[in-house]
Amino acid sequence: MSNHARPEVEIVAVGNELLTGDTLDTNGRFLTRAVEPLGLAPRFKHVAGDREEDVILVLRDAASRADVVFVTGGLGPTEDDLTRKSVARAFDRRLIFHAELVPPIRDYFARAGQEMPPDNERQALLPSGAKPVPNPLGTAPGFILEDGRTSVIVLPGVPREMRAMYEASVHPYLASRFGGGDTWAVRTVMTTGVSESKVNELLGGLLDLSRNPQVGLTASDLGVDLRIRARAASRDAARAMIDALVEEARARLGPAIYSETGEGLEQVVGRLLAERKKTLSIAESCTGGLISERITSVSGSSAYFDRGIVTYSNESKEAMLDVPRPVLIAHGAVSPETACAMAEGIRRSTETDFGLSVTGIAGPTGGTAGKPVGLVYVALAVRGGETRVKEHRFPGDREMVRARSAQAALDLLRLYLTGC
Amino acid sequence: MSNHARPEVEIVAVGNELLTGDTLDTNGRFLTRAVEPLGLAPRFKHVAGDREEDVILVLRDAASRADVVFVTGGLGPTEDDLTRKSVARAFDRRLIFHAELVPPIRDYFARAGQEMPPDNERQALLPSGAKPVPNPLGTAPGFILEDGRTSVIVLPGVPREMRAMYEASVHPYLASRFGGGDTWAVRTVMTTGVSESKVNELLGGLLDLSRNPQVGLTASDLGVDLRIRARAASRDAARAMIDALVEEARARLGPAIYSETGEGLEQVVGRLLAERKKTLSIAESCTGGLISERITSVSGSSAYFDRGIVTYSNESKEAMLDVPRPVLIAHGAVSPETACAMAEGIRRSTETDFGLSVTGIAGPTGGTAGKPVGLVYVALAVRGGETRVKEHRFPGDREMVRARSAQAALDLLRLYLTGC
Repeated sequence: MSNHARPEVEIVAVGNELLTGDTLDTNGRFLTRAVEPLGLAPRFKHVAGDREEDVILVLRDAASRADVVFVTGGLGPTEDDLTRKSVARAFDRRLIFHAELVPPIRDYFARAGQEMPPDNERQALLPSGAKPVPNPLGTAPGFILEDGRTSVIVLPGVPREMRAMYEASVHPYLASRFGGGDTWAVRTVMTTGVSESKVNELLGGLLDLSRNPQVGLTASDLGVDLRIRARAASRDAARAMIDALVEEARARLGPAIYSETGEGLEQVVGRLLAERKKTLSIAESCTGGLISERITSVSGSSAYFDRGIVTYSNESKEAMLDVPRPVLIAHGAVSPETACAMAEGIRRSTETDFGLSVTGIAGPTGGTAGKPVGLVYVALAVRGGETRVKEHRFPGDREMVRARSAQAALDLLRLYLTGC
Repeated sequence: MSNHARPEVEIVAVGNELLTGDTLDTNGRFLTRAVEPLGLAPRFKHVAGDREEDVILVLRDAASRADVVFVTGGLGPTEDDLTRKSVARAFDRRLIFHAELVPPIRDYFARAGQEMPPDNERQALLPSGAKPVPNPLGTAPGFILEDGRTSVIVLPGVPREMRAMYEASVHPYLASRFGGGDTWAVRTVMTTGVSESKVNELLGGLLDLSRNPQVGLTASDLGVDLRIRARAASRDAARAMIDALVEEARARLGPAIYSETGEGLEQVVGRLLAERKKTLSIAESCTGGLISERITSVSGSSAYFDRGIVTYSNESKEAMLDVPRPVLIAHGAVSPETACAMAEGIRRSTETDFGLSVTGIAGPTGGTAGKPVGLVYVALAVRGGETRVKEHRFPGDREMVRARSAQAALDLLRLYLTGC
């Protein structure tokens, strides 16, 4: 039995490609966040390859400790897909053929105009006592097997199938089993432009892990995220506690916060542009198309995004962006003057409301003592307004400098659009 | 004791951010590949949070089974960083202060013009009997602790520190412990433009898992990779076996193979352009800058990449790329005719050797019965040559369609450059 007050959760991912790392597991992250509102949090994650004895070993270990064991992967129709068999053996069950599970699988193939291959009948085998979990998006049904106090919840490895099945069937099951006590609410608040140590300093006591709500920090190239979890007797009460904490965080962090809903910066900027019916064009040098790529990754971006230009050579900066040769000669391609000229040139030639530019040295070569690798200028030209430019000195390798530059450019636009 | 002939390996990653999935662990993948030439392969990976009793539990379990246990993370200078303490307790050792480990840490800070904070002295504590592993890129030394037949190898979680320490100190140690028997060689061969089931069919018996060399397939949006592992008495013999297998794979897969060295398609295309002293410009619609972003992610790409243009509107296609209005009206923005006109327009206006273009419907909106989401045209204009165009119908969501479109465009150029 668990010696913790809180129910314990472990996650087991099955698959050689996960064990080698050729595929990065994202199901664990989804499940971690999905069970949070129930007050549950995984204690361990395990990855086992496609070997029956290994799956059995790790399953038995996990079930000996945990109240809930999630198993993802290995439910396909072939001999290699051994999760069904392994779960049955781990808990001394026989595999039972569920004839009622075959028609949905056959229907799945029929919708694609195909006949069901005979191998897929194997997916209708479940350990005795298991309750099937329907799969609306694929062929493999999942199942829930209760063994003593442990619920073993088995789902396919394909993320979209796993997610749909969790939402439709597993969450209600877990809520009915564990939903009696306190409820949890969670929110992610995203910041950029401020270092982790600065966020730490500004938030101070709010980060005390014994507090409720609890705040955790995660730093990446895009900024520092605050992960906030509150526990209360009702969902509304927990949410109100988070609201209060976010208000306090806002007072301390100010405009560094760009998202309180999980939206990325490209979505935030896109929404602000769409709401204000403004248009944008982009001139990139060291980021090589990354900013345009992020802006256009948002469906519907054609409403505000006109065009992007990636200029690597001085000639192309002159020809495409009207950057005056004397500016390039006097100040160089990586300078606040060139960044401003690029932003103004793209804005003017495309007749958009905003022109956004980046020029810098992403490395690993090209740096000098006066202009080291990581030196980056971002500039924003505004129809009928003054051009803004900002200097950055980013640490890290080429990929990191590019990622941080793109984020800084998008943030320059966000700050303008929100009146900062 | 292990009941397998081959030495067993397990990996333990420590950190709340890994347990929640906020950070995806890439160290496991590195270690898996790094130990392959020694004939070693991890049997399990585990993730534990920053809780001493959990780290101790998973460490003891792993050590009871494995000959090698890697532990990454939790070696920082703060109280939260509990890997040193947990390893000591798991194997009943005391923590010993190694005065000789302090100067390198102090030097690390001195190089950045800083004084060492007192907390960092904690990083000089190692379990008794452990041998330190120097960290040339950071402050935290690692260590190797031999407990019975198990080598517990403890390294920082920061990937670049972990990798440098593995290469310099851990690999030689493992080679001297396990290098006596057969040697392994590994190679990855990358293909694109052919489905996994087609690769399966073409390779046939080569995929038999009992063969040596063994071939595994991994499919992604970029194509299907062959992971080849050969076992032999010497490294040269193992490599020769791989050479022979790759030759056979080449005969069966032909020009679908784009890389036998681990290079990405943007690196392959960049190398081909540089060798031939050719230049490239790019006109993108649905990929939104992704192709330019990939081309410029390669250091030195300014030698062959002139500029990229992202045109979302019909007006910008006319203005920037000289796509004739009648072509747009008669055939639409997503058509082979427009793709060709885009490629020719960008090539002509930039006077480069090649013009590469993409136009398509990435979704989720914008599709019609005649032109569904996923319909994509890629075109290549060639100085003094004929323009090539290719139609694709890609499955999947916006991100997948964009990723596959960029890969298909780069591959069109590769096939031309290699005379296919």
